[in-house]
Amino acid sequence: MEKKFPVIETDRLILKEIIRDDAEDIFKYLSDENVMKYYGLEPFKSIDEAMEEIGWYQSIFDEGSGVRWGITLKGHRNVIGSCGFLNKVPQHYRSEIGFELSKEYWGKGIANEALAAVIQYGFEQMNLQRIQALIEPLNLSSQKLVERNGFIKEGLMRNYEYTCGKFDDLFMYSLIKQDVETGSNT
Amino acid sequence: MEKKFPVIETDRLILKEIIRDDAEDIFKYLSDENVMKYYGLEPFKSIDEAMEEIGWYQSIFDEGSGVRWGITLKGHRNVIGSCGFLNKVPQHYRSEIGFELSKEYWGKGIANEALAAVIQYGFEQMNLQRIQALIEPLNLSSQKLVERNGFIKEGLMRNYEYTCGKFDDLFMYSLIKQDVETGSNT
Amino acid sequence: MEKKFPVIETDRLILKEIIRDDAEDIFKYLSDENVMKYYGLEPFKSIDEAMEEIGWYQSIFDEGSGVRWGITLKGHRNVIGSCGFLNKVPQHYRSEIGFELSKEYWGKGIANEALAAVIQYGFEQMNLQRIQALIEPLNLSSQKLVERNGFIKEGLMRNYEYTCGKFDDLFMYSLIKQDVETGSNT
Amino acid sequence: MEKKFPVIETDRLILKEIIRDDAEDIFKYLSDENVMKYYGLEPFKSIDEAMEEIGWYQSIFDEGSGVRWGITLKGHRNVIGSCGFLNKVPQHYRSEIGFELSKEYWGKGIANEALAAVIQYGFEQMNLQRIQALIEPLNLSSQKLVERNGFIKEGLMRNYEYTCGKFDDLFMYSLIKQDVETGSNT
Amino acid sequence: MEKKFPVIETDRLILKEIIRDDAEDIFKYLSDENVMKYYGLEPFKSIDEAMEEIGWYQSIFDEGSGVRWGITLKGHRNVIGSCGFLNKVPQHYRSEIGFELSKEYWGKGIANEALAAVIQYGFEQMNLQRIQALIEPLNLSSQKLVERNGFIKEGLMRNYEYTCGKFDDLFMYSLIKQDVETGSNT
Amino acid sequence: MEKKFPVIETDRLILKEIIRDDAEDIFKYLSDENVMKYYGLEPFKSIDEAMEEIGWYQSIFDEGSGVRWGITLKGHRNVIGSCGFLNKVPQHYRSEIGFELSKEYWGKGIANEALAAVIQYGFEQMNLQRIQALIEPLNLSSQKLVERNGFIKEGLMRNYEYTCGKFDDLFMYSLIKQDVETGSNT
Repeated sequence: MEKKFPVIETDRLILKEIIRDDAEDIFKYLSDENVMKYYGLEPFKSIDEAMEEIGWYQSIFDEGSGVRWGITLKGHRNVIGSCGFLNKVPQHYRSEIGFELSKEYWGKGIANEALAAVIQYGFEQMNLQRIQALIEPLNLSSQKLVERNGFIKEGLMRNYEYTCGKFDDLFMYSLIKQDVETGSNT
Repeated sequence: MEKKFPVIETDRLILKEIIRDDAEDIFKYLSDENVMKYYGLEPFKSIDEAMEEIGWYQSIFDEGSGVRWGITLKGHRNVIGSCGFLNKVPQHYRSEIGFELSKEYWGKGIANEALAAVIQYGFEQMNLQRIQALIEPLNLSSQKLVERNGFIKEGLMRNYEYTCGKFDDLFMYSLIKQDVETGSNT
Repeated sequence: MEKKFPVIETDRLILKEIIRDDAEDIFKYLSDENVMKYYGLEPFKSIDEAMEEIGWYQSIFDEGSGVRWGITLKGHRNVIGSCGFLNKVPQHYRSEIGFELSKEYWGKGIANEALAAVIQYGFEQMNLQRIQALIEPLNLSSQKLVERNGFIKEGLMRNYEYTCGKFDDLFMYSLIKQDVETGSNT
Repeated sequence: MEKKFPVIETDRLILKEIIRDDAEDIFKYLSDENVMKYYGLEPFKSIDEAMEEIGWYQSIFDEGSGVRWGITLKGHRNVIGSCGFLNKVPQHYRSEIGFELSKEYWGKGIANEALAAVIQYGFEQMNLQRIQALIEPLNLSSQKLVERNGFIKEGLMRNYEYTCGKFDDLFMYSLIKQDVETGSNT
Repeated sequence: MEKKFPVIETDRLILKEIIRDDAEDIFKYLSDENVMKYYGLEPFKSIDEAMEEIGWYQSIFDEGSGVRWGITLKGHRNVIGSCGFLNKVPQHYRSEIGFELSKEYWGKGIANEALAAVIQYGFEQMNLQRIQALIEPLNLSSQKLVERNGFIKEGLMRNYEYTCGKFDDLFMYSLIKQDVETGSNT
Repeated sequence: MEKKFPVIETDRLILKEIIRDDAEDIFKYLSDENVMKYYGLEPFKSIDEAMEEIGWYQSIFDEGSGVRWGITLKGHRNVIGSCGFLNKVPQHYRSEIGFELSKEYWGKGIANEALAAVIQYGFEQMNLQRIQALIEPLNLSSQKLVERNGFIKEGLMRNYEYTCGKFDDLFMYSLIKQDVETGSNT
């Protein structure tokens, strides 16, 4: 039996499953070198690559190692970015977070709104204890984004990933469930 | 076709595949609470658990996500400990290292001799770029062991693993291929 | 004999003693959840809590463990925020700094102007050697504020305070007297 | 009504209240410059100073800001060192730990045995959440001692204490209640 | 035979040799206390000091220990700032970077544009492996500038420089050649 | 006029100038790969290299950028190791420290005794404010040696030196004048 993909609603956004019909939408931003600068892949050159990417989103959801939401503005059906969990390690209740957004929507707090909702989902629905983010030193805006959500920089992981032909040092950030619990009120 | 398990010879040791016949040997030390203190599992209580452990060793080798050597002294067939790689991420050329040794052999440099050989194997035969070790703050002897082999402490990973009913903070250590290359001629 | 409360004048501000007549002023911002987010207390619900707070300000001044200034704009008598020292350890010449500001005055450099004056007072009049600030990871604006005044992040203090029903990790920042001395001129 | 001073028994030790009759015992080691090197006080020169120290032990116990045990070997009544809590902040469930031992007993694991018992007492009987230790960089043996008990170094606190006429940088170490809970079994 | 000074062209800038005729230009900003706040020298008081500075630029170029470019806007001959390398250690392929800009040009991305070009020159033409920057904790804008170019903060160097009559703690930042190589395709 | 080389006497050692007659002595340990492992040079193969090394010692003393003492045991004229300052930056009152010792004298506290004397000389006679040591991560014994003398690890300097054909990451340690001042009594 199939798992149902969880839809999340925030003030301005609907986070939903990315399907094959969204290929052109995601190709649009995944082919933009500004967006892809720190994605760990070269900018996409064909719609086929977008199809493959969607296939990967579906496979991580099916196998339970992650979940990737398409970001849409309420009242619009276009996917303008995506975010979600990957590399989930269920045994240790931790997962990694990833996100990217079409350039024309930068600077409006959309990534932050999506991220906050996804974090809440991770702790409450997926029962995560630790959410980690691995971010390139040069990617200051993503560092700021996760810091605004309470992530703490734990260290520089040397040569942690091999992307686009070279080994990258990455900052390890993490958010622990207790960090975000308000603890207040009965 | 089956992969052949690589045997490694050092000055005093033979590192070899752990098979079902070794179950009693490994049960001996995996049931010792001194050895298991930081293993991430409760001390084993039955030979069946040792069997299961061996099954896990074989499965990570078969699926290519790791390799676990049994440590034997030259001229003796008993397995007195084990060490090796786990959680290999081939795409990023990195893997984690793990090890444990029967208590009666502590303090003789055996873990160090095995570890050095395994590290060399990882860089030269498995083409790893980064070997990481995740060690509990209380486990000072393992910290010392990896530091003696050039590992650098990158940070404290908060609530990184859930073992024995609680979340553990772990130190992330890593060794990069270049760190150990002598660089000198011939 | 009573100590006289020290009044401080800056370009735009008068920093003065907070008295019982200021209770409504301080209740205004201490009941605002935006202001109280990282204050370590729930937003105030009654003027009585403001009265209690003022009592605490007076007690730390009387016993010599701190001093809390009300922030007023020149030409206006309303208290729009407060800042000052607490947890002074005279034996070691160090104290902690704290501050908060009514939301409508954010973004005008007022907190910075008050903080700079208070720091100067601490080093010159109170003979402090070390001023420390304990700030929640999520409270980025306070981190930026103290960094702009030369504070250096020394580490993450785990579970350092119990506030609003949970234990908080806090960044320890400090400023040393020498850090701010210009050293120039005769 | 008076609080009763808690006596602690370990394998080899009785940890007990230090009373005025112990003045000569504690003077013996508090006048030894080897012991006092990192104590934050000059070596004692008269029995009166030892009396004063005992008075301080009693005052912190009476006011509830700490508790200092005298270390005695089972079957002997001499106090050969002391250890305990100081600077307790009940509101935040944290306290600092301190210890020293007569030089002739160094290297026998006595400080470790006493410290482990005191830590357990702090978490279980005093309901502490965080135990911190502030140690001079030069005091390697104390650093090792607390690390062996699971304390994690959080950072270097600059000019944190003024002792013997100068400001000392101190390493902040902490142990969190969860760090030591085994979490295993019922 | 004389070395030829390398001219660098960017989108909006020409980076060129600073000669004696530029003394008035550089005096203009080197006498501005806003610019000199973290320069390690008092604001200049006479054109002679500017002449001396130019002499120093020429001497480090002649002796091969550095190179300092004057920043000019295309189509204008005025030097509005400078940047470049100093304290080169050829044996270890590393050098330090320094920069400053006339205040009226702040906030336009000019320092960033100059810095990026100079970094590229350092790795490609000067064969550097490591470029380091030593920045005062209070100098947040320079920290941000180098972080935007991928520099990583390695630590706080205590009392590293003696400037204007006092010892300064400085953050050590570095950029490694590999950090900036794209690694991707031809 | 020539500077006179300063001779230092400690309990067991005389630290003295290294002259050409000492070439065979220093060749003995500089050709030992155990000693040279972290020296930054290949083990020496000829007496000529020792001669060159002595020439370097003399040149840094003559030009004032350092001073290197030969370590001798009282009552013996053989040089069994050396230690001293290099890369002095007089303008900033800092210098680097280096040392090595013939293997047969390891483990007797000789390096420690020499280092302590040299540090004292640096602060008192050379007027240094900061003494730094750059040590390879694998060189645990040197790390321990400087830590025992109060040095604090400030960070990992990436690719800081190019030695024996590769770039080394080095730990930056430093000792500040105030760290060692007792501050006590007249």
